Amino acid sequence: MADAPYKLILLRHGESEWNAKNLFTGWVDVNLTEKGEKEAVRGGELLKDAGLLPDVLHTSLQRRAIRTAQLALESADRLWIPVRRSWRLNERHYGALQGKDKAQTLAEFGEEQFMLWRRSYDTPPPPLARDDEYSQFDDPRYATLPPEVRPDTECLKDVVVRMLPYWFDSIVPDLLTGRTVLVAAHGNSLRGLVKHLDGISDEDISGLNIPTGIPLSYELDADFKPLKPGGTYLDPDAAKAAIEAVKNQGKKK
Amino acid sequence: MADAPYKLILLRHGESEWNAKNLFTGWVDVNLTEKGEKEAVRGGELLKDAGLLPDVLHTSLQRRAIRTAQLALESADRLWIPVRRSWRLNERHYGALQGKDKAQTLAEFGEEQFMLWRRSYDTPPPPLARDDEYSQFDDPRYATLPPEVRPDTECLKDVVVRMLPYWFDSIVPDLLTGRTVLVAAHGNSLRGLVKHLDGISDEDISGLNIPTGIPLSYELDADFKPLKPGGTYLDPDAAKAAIEAVKNQGKKK
Repeated sequence: MADAPYKLILLRHGESEWNAKNLFTGWVDVNLTEKGEKEAVRGGELLKDAGLLPDVLHTSLQRRAIRTAQLALESADRLWIPVRRSWRLNERHYGALQGKDKAQTLAEFGEEQFMLWRRSYDTPPPPLARDDEYSQFDDPRYATLPPEVRPDTECLKDVVVRMLPYWFDSIVPDLLTGRTVLVAAHGNSLRGLVKHLDGISDEDISGLNIPTGIPLSYELDADFKPLKPGGTYLDPDAAKAAIEAVKNQGKKK
Repeated sequence: MADAPYKLILLRHGESEWNAKNLFTGWVDVNLTEKGEKEAVRGGELLKDAGLLPDVLHTSLQRRAIRTAQLALESADRLWIPVRRSWRLNERHYGALQGKDKAQTLAEFGEEQFMLWRRSYDTPPPPLARDDEYSQFDDPRYATLPPEVRPDTECLKDVVVRMLPYWFDSIVPDLLTGRTVLVAAHGNSLRGLVKHLDGISDEDISGLNIPTGIPLSYELDADFKPLKPGGTYLDPDAAKAAIEAVKNQGKKK
């Protein structure tokens, strides 16, 4: 067992095709845009420039996170590190909102309901029908999961509950070996992890946004608590600007 | 434990920058050419068209094999499968020949010595100096290996000896679960594996070439012996043409 501080890097995937179209994505397996690919490459350069080189990678099962990690590691010359993947790092399942336009949903249901679905801790959207074109219930990548753990919708609390076992059982053991761990995942799976690490309340987590493609570095003490609350973005100015942009997402024309 | 036949797919990386330049590569971590990237994408399409979808991936620690696997799995829509990597799947270490021009080496040392280094089973080239610009002895990806297992040169026999433990301890257990296993690796690590699977003699293995980017599919019986010796290339005509081209490599201008 290595000594603290342990080094953890969180990386939210770059812009996806549906980010660009302002659609709710969730478990739909969309690809990165060209902009998203560039963000990922830049993320890797930031890691390299900071001398913060990952020794092991954890990703979700979704291609936008997998490809972000591949592109970032390629530009950091760390393509060869071990890779682990889990559905527990997936984006929040957005239920019946998957595939819906964000601005349209806002107009249709009003700001209160919209913000409740987007930002409340424990109110999931209505479940997605399993025969919906945007359901992944029968996707081969989830075939080894018992049906009762395959979600049809999730609130952030659901994400925290299904993500934390992976944190405790898979990521923490890698940190304990002294390895620098990169977690390439999604807005909400990473918000859930940051909520846990920084001890953010159910209320306050609604105000937290994580920008795409900018590595967020944490040093953790022996109890896996951050030495610096909130961690450190490797490009703080870009992170600040991006966080503002995410806040305004629902309001896009 | 699943029943036989077990499904194994071997994939040699697409053309690399040094394949294109006709240089001995070995452990030098060169990238794919654009042609090599296209071969990899096409390899994935062949898998998809054949309905032969990998459930788990094993790669070397070298980027030309890693990227070939990434591109092939992306085009087969299987990016999300588990990944395992090992230096034991690396290309043969080419010793002092690494970075040398193949045609020049042929002219300098004559065909007999040249073919001995390239194709004999147990004659390694002279060792590469550890301070040579093309030595990977101190590369961070091999830092966890005890120095005595990090090669300075290898013959094919050395490759077989260091590759087989990985076959027995990591790949076979995945096959035993009934999963279709993709091994993305190199000319010589795959020749070594095929030698073992098909029971090819030390003499006859010199005549075996494996083309780049064309998946080679094996069905294995309960003793992990091929149902069809030599397996099946997913594009047999292209494989045949490519095998001829490999044979003539040393003779390029």
